[in-house]
Amino acid sequence: MVKNMIIGQSGGPTAVINSSLAGAIEYGLQSEKIGTIYGMVHGIEGLLEDNVMSLSAIFRNLPYELNRLKHSPAMFLGSCRYKLSGSEEEYKKVFERFEQYGIGYFIYIGGNDSMDTVKKLSDYAEKTGSDIRIVGIPKTIDNDLVGIDHSPGFGSAAKYIAACVREVAYDTSIYSIKSVHIIEAMGRDAGWLAASSVLARQDDMPAPHLVYLPEVPFSVGRFVNDVKEKLSEYNSVIVVVSEGIRDGDGNYISAAEDKGDDQFGHARLSGTGAYLKTVVEKEIGCKVRALEPSVLQRSAGHIVSLCDVSEAFNLGSVAVRAAEEGKSGVFSTLRRTSNKPYCVEYGTEDVSVVANREKTVPVDWITPEGNDVTQEMVTYLKPLIRGTTQTPFRGGLPDYIDIRHLDIKMQKYSDE
Amino acid sequence: MVKNMIIGQSGGPTAVINSSLAGAIEYGLQSEKIGTIYGMVHGIEGLLEDNVMSLSAIFRNLPYELNRLKHSPAMFLGSCRYKLSGSEEEYKKVFERFEQYGIGYFIYIGGNDSMDTVKKLSDYAEKTGSDIRIVGIPKTIDNDLVGIDHSPGFGSAAKYIAACVREVAYDTSIYSIKSVHIIEAMGRDAGWLAASSVLARQDDMPAPHLVYLPEVPFSVGRFVNDVKEKLSEYNSVIVVVSEGIRDGDGNYISAAEDKGDDQFGHARLSGTGAYLKTVVEKEIGCKVRALEPSVLQRSAGHIVSLCDVSEAFNLGSVAVRAAEEGKSGVFSTLRRTSNKPYCVEYGTEDVSVVANREKTVPVDWITPEGNDVTQEMVTYLKPLIRGTTQTPFRGGLPDYIDIRHLDIKMQKYSDE
Repeated sequence: MVKNMIIGQSGGPTAVINSSLAGAIEYGLQSEKIGTIYGMVHGIEGLLEDNVMSLSAIFRNLPYELNRLKHSPAMFLGSCRYKLSGSEEEYKKVFERFEQYGIGYFIYIGGNDSMDTVKKLSDYAEKTGSDIRIVGIPKTIDNDLVGIDHSPGFGSAAKYIAACVREVAYDTSIYSIKSVHIIEAMGRDAGWLAASSVLARQDDMPAPHLVYLPEVPFSVGRFVNDVKEKLSEYNSVIVVVSEGIRDGDGNYISAAEDKGDDQFGHARLSGTGAYLKTVVEKEIGCKVRALEPSVLQRSAGHIVSLCDVSEAFNLGSVAVRAAEEGKSGVFSTLRRTSNKPYCVEYGTEDVSVVANREKTVPVDWITPEGNDVTQEMVTYLKPLIRGTTQTPFRGGLPDYIDIRHLDIKMQKYSDE
Repeated sequence: MVKNMIIGQSGGPTAVINSSLAGAIEYGLQSEKIGTIYGMVHGIEGLLEDNVMSLSAIFRNLPYELNRLKHSPAMFLGSCRYKLSGSEEEYKKVFERFEQYGIGYFIYIGGNDSMDTVKKLSDYAEKTGSDIRIVGIPKTIDNDLVGIDHSPGFGSAAKYIAACVREVAYDTSIYSIKSVHIIEAMGRDAGWLAASSVLARQDDMPAPHLVYLPEVPFSVGRFVNDVKEKLSEYNSVIVVVSEGIRDGDGNYISAAEDKGDDQFGHARLSGTGAYLKTVVEKEIGCKVRALEPSVLQRSAGHIVSLCDVSEAFNLGSVAVRAAEEGKSGVFSTLRRTSNKPYCVEYGTEDVSVVANREKTVPVDWITPEGNDVTQEMVTYLKPLIRGTTQTPFRGGLPDYIDIRHLDIKMQKYSDE
């Protein structure tokens, strides 16, 4: 029996969430069990507000647009940070929408908070005897999802950070004066992104000279000594820090902390690098700059990893196939079966494995000094940034797809 | 009569200074009048310290390396910020080095400060009857050189800034909450780079919504009103500011000013965006982020403009040809002869035109409200960011050339 599918995106952006969306749409368009493919605009929140559009109508006859979607960063459908309250009333409203649109398959792309939504909805479906299949597709630049070898979105952000370090290293190497550059990578509790900066060390390039992750306590005093030591050997020292580094008592090393807009109660950090800049100025006194690539590291669609784009696309297809095969309460995942050559195997995993949990860097992948990572980490990271994609350019700039340029009437966007 | 050539780089980095170096080397290697091509390591300062290497030895038989050089950012030979004192003793020392290396051609790649060096040396040569030909090759991301339609290095930085704005716009568009992003572009006195952000407005993309240049006085009160007005129309407002914006009295709108390491007495600014972030927080109270791409905008070799790389390369060749033809005290330049199709004509210009002067944005290319640029500016900018290059990648990262990986003994670098 043919049923319709609805798909949404949630949480923070990455460069390849739309690749997963493209993979899911492509599989869905070819499936004989799936009718219309709908998109929730602004995730589950959009669904509740009946902000729904037909993706089949756009992409059925436009393979070029589907390819653009695959290579466009951020979220075509818009996002939300809405946490289901768990109230019967709200569940009923969601499932009424499902009935309204003839939905048999619900697909949700997001991080561990979004997998919580997948878990709640699939539990409710099971409890109420609904046969709607509810499946997640993982994403996060932080690489902190459990139940998967590495998260889609991470490889591209890792590539961006490593490329930044290389380019800053080239930029700073031109003078013979002493200088320190501190690059702040995203990662509240997991240091994977900061760690990936070490991939910049191709050939004899020593940058980054120091790398600090949130998994081990950070000491400002030891940091000053580390920098001094590296300055005695190198003119230009490049330091990479996770935004979430903390001292021995668990206090963030950060100029400012802001509990602004995150409904899940996560602190938004910024200024870790800026704070350490003032420390270097005061304690060492050489030229120092703090760089915070900020949102650029998660949305730089022009320098994504081909490995990442392909895997994100495949995880999209795998999730829809799993739903079609009757699975529910699972997310699509991948397992690394070999490093040389790099191979992965796709499958699904129960969503309770991933929801509301975080995978941090194993402490034995961090050097005893706490200022670098081990060879195991390098071996793990290396394949994930490989390959360049054919991002379409027009007029000299990346030619990303934008929901607002497609001729569709939509409540939310037409308000803008 | 065959004479040797020496070439150096000076000032701040751009993504295409090495393209000019590659163009000069390629022309020099083929010239019958030019013998060995030497490089000054760390510019004129390196020459004084006898820090000189043979470029012919490296590149004569390695066309692939010359191509890598063409696509590598920053400065292969290292830089300096050394201003000639003008003392007879120093000139003598420089010309003794010329004699030591059998130099007939001196080529210097740099901005207006470096053109001052070209002017001084060529004046001295003329005064003393030396037949050494002294020629400059222009570069700067700021586009503030006079005597040239646009500066090599500018197009690639412009492309980077415009791509950033596009990617930040995609990143921020996913939520329906109100937000402001402030991107700070380089440009102390000239707003060309901030202006180039408007190229992001392909299709219907409205970002950047507001653009402020240093050429017109900046009013914090008017800025707050501008942002409020845009927020009433758009959820996500993207503002681009030049680092050098000033109020009506000429005071920098900047959190911090640092007269650190610049021997030419220029203030190093930073924190203009950070300061305006605090203004928006206080006066408007919505979510706000400040982004400072900092050195990344001048060294992002992975997203350069093909137009810029080609022109930089050609300006390198043109300068050496001019020297070979007996010209001195000039720099290579280009003149736009047509916009559709985009065409330029190469030539030379007297260096006194460019030295120690700055080309700022014409005030009538800025809208009367002072928060945007006119169509004339867009027409001027558009061709300069066009075309993508085949930057070589290896292991997922740009594979830039590095003087330290080539097996050459050099005083300065072997110290590191």
